[in-house]
Amino acid sequence: MIVKYNLIKTEKNTKARLGKIETNYGTFDTPMFMPVGTRGTVKSLNPEEVKACHSGIVLANTYHLWLRPGEDIVDLCGGLHKFMNYDGPILTDSGGYQVFSLAKNKKDITEEGVNFKSHIDGKKLLLTPEKSIEIQNKLDSDIAMSFDECPPASATHEYLENSVKRTLRWAERGKKVHNNPRQALFGIVQGGPYEDLRKYSAIETVKMNFDGYSIGGVANDGESKEDMYKAIDYSVPYLPEDKLRYLMGVGEPVDILEGVERGVDIFDCVLPTRIARHGQAFTRDGKINLNNAKYKTDLDPIEKDCDCYCCKNYTRAYIRHLISVGETLGGRLLSIHNIRFLIRLTEEIREAIEKDSFLEYKKEFLDRYEKR
Amino acid sequence: MIVKYNLIKTEKNTKARLGKIETNYGTFDTPMFMPVGTRGTVKSLNPEEVKACHSGIVLANTYHLWLRPGEDIVDLCGGLHKFMNYDGPILTDSGGYQVFSLAKNKKDITEEGVNFKSHIDGKKLLLTPEKSIEIQNKLDSDIAMSFDECPPASATHEYLENSVKRTLRWAERGKKVHNNPRQALFGIVQGGPYEDLRKYSAIETVKMNFDGYSIGGVANDGESKEDMYKAIDYSVPYLPEDKLRYLMGVGEPVDILEGVERGVDIFDCVLPTRIARHGQAFTRDGKINLNNAKYKTDLDPIEKDCDCYCCKNYTRAYIRHLISVGETLGGRLLSIHNIRFLIRLTEEIREAIEKDSFLEYKKEFLDRYEKR
Repeated sequence: MIVKYNLIKTEKNTKARLGKIETNYGTFDTPMFMPVGTRGTVKSLNPEEVKACHSGIVLANTYHLWLRPGEDIVDLCGGLHKFMNYDGPILTDSGGYQVFSLAKNKKDITEEGVNFKSHIDGKKLLLTPEKSIEIQNKLDSDIAMSFDECPPASATHEYLENSVKRTLRWAERGKKVHNNPRQALFGIVQGGPYEDLRKYSAIETVKMNFDGYSIGGVANDGESKEDMYKAIDYSVPYLPEDKLRYLMGVGEPVDILEGVERGVDIFDCVLPTRIARHGQAFTRDGKINLNNAKYKTDLDPIEKDCDCYCCKNYTRAYIRHLISVGETLGGRLLSIHNIRFLIRLTEEIREAIEKDSFLEYKKEFLDRYEKR
Repeated sequence: MIVKYNLIKTEKNTKARLGKIETNYGTFDTPMFMPVGTRGTVKSLNPEEVKACHSGIVLANTYHLWLRPGEDIVDLCGGLHKFMNYDGPILTDSGGYQVFSLAKNKKDITEEGVNFKSHIDGKKLLLTPEKSIEIQNKLDSDIAMSFDECPPASATHEYLENSVKRTLRWAERGKKVHNNPRQALFGIVQGGPYEDLRKYSAIETVKMNFDGYSIGGVANDGESKEDMYKAIDYSVPYLPEDKLRYLMGVGEPVDILEGVERGVDIFDCVLPTRIARHGQAFTRDGKINLNNAKYKTDLDPIEKDCDCYCCKNYTRAYIRHLISVGETLGGRLLSIHNIRFLIRLTEEIREAIEKDSFLEYKKEFLDRYEKR
């Protein structure tokens, strides 16, 4: 069996969908937020902690694992699940986003693929659609992504038109070499904020009959939220009902809510773990920064009604202390809380879809979250 | 009840002792290795992980907690146990060692105490015997240590003679202000490698009737192992049988074995967690360095017969990957293993004492450990 999406219901007033995903490594409900395990580990956490956040699936980065330790070593270790000791579903991205963001100003995009220099040692590398899929085949994730071009938010319509077409040719080439019967392969819709390009990209990608679809090019530096929502609005109508829809690189609560409303099922983002390392925590009343001196003597947990390990066991005063002296346990505890926060958000979203009250839930959540 | 030491037996051929300690936060067997939770956390680990290593007691540093977050904040949080969410026994040191090591070249020792500059912001500070005890009273650890002078390994007999006498006066002053009925107070024997000074220090310290005794001044930079063993040999004969004996700052397996042989009960050291962060692991065959490229494809655990979380779940290849890319989970897994390694060592030592076969055990362990 490869990844199977079961649509349970679509909410009455929106495009929000309730679904269930089946994989070889277990099932999970959607909408779902996916923590990011960049280099084969969700930063500072062990797999049990990731699971205790009720995570349904984690993401690992093909680019990073390709460079270190290399896909052959992961393969030798029995694939990514065994390598990182995580027996739940794993999605790998294509490496495209990293090649375009980390190798900035050094990349050379050709029909063959992308020539760039490693962000670690400056070594010249070439990532092609075939290579990306071959790496992911060896990593043996449950879901692999097609290799796409991720143009900057400033790209013109003319540039994007060529880019979308190249991404389609790359998707085709990747699909041809995909050769792992345990692994699903997803296509990626590109096209920036342009209706005609998103439509074209979606229709042509869907024609190739992938196992699921993602909406890419939406978490770029400098992109407006307006453009992100347009990208979703212009893509979703052309995606099949019976396949998973994944909005790449998105993790702000408001964007998860806007994405779900527009028919998206899963999301990923480094945000919860990255802000945790800097001392920030999500709360129902917005983000708080534990570096603030007022938390020195705050005996409350991060959130009183949160069921995570951090909130059940530690005070803000202790976490502030850990953060302020640079102890890694601080970022670890906040990572647990922040991941759990986003996953609880998706749990509540699922309940709201169930009750056909998504818009009420969204308004209530955002009114409180954005008040301060 | 404050801390109570129960001597179970002394080994037939050595001074090695088997004992049991009772505290308000539980009992533990001795000999025991004590992990160090410098700033209210055993670096990178949570309390459950520390306990899963079968740790009987942890150490926290008075100096560090005094500077940040400050003893009043720990007090406000309900004491160190509640602050760090650790409900097992905790020992705090006096701050003396840190004042002498971290504030190097800036200290000014007077009869009153030590004037020095904070290693964090250069602020002028004064730590006195009374202040050290007052801080520890507020931290509410199970065992507090007297404030002592920690002279460098190069100190002359003349210097040490004055220093030992001052440390005795400081011990007396600290004992007078000690005011926490839940907390035991230990005296510290000093005197460098000199028999007359150790004897004098031990006898005079014991006269003050502390709840336990430690042997200090043995883990200084530049001190030879010979001198360390002499310091123990010259101190132990004058310490009472019915009180705990603690060798401060010692954690190399060979030194734990030598200490136990000479009648020491507990040990502490940052070594297992510090070397872990640098990619080193204890094994029965000596230390190994996971940065070594040969571990890239090593599918074995750190130690096949180890029962720790790290060894039961992860390969050397994965841990090497984590260490080489700088993921904190790497140091965390190795910290768990290294602490468990030293605690297993003390478990096996206890078995050997039980069977009156300590010397055989020691030889067998060291023959293998030091072979490579």
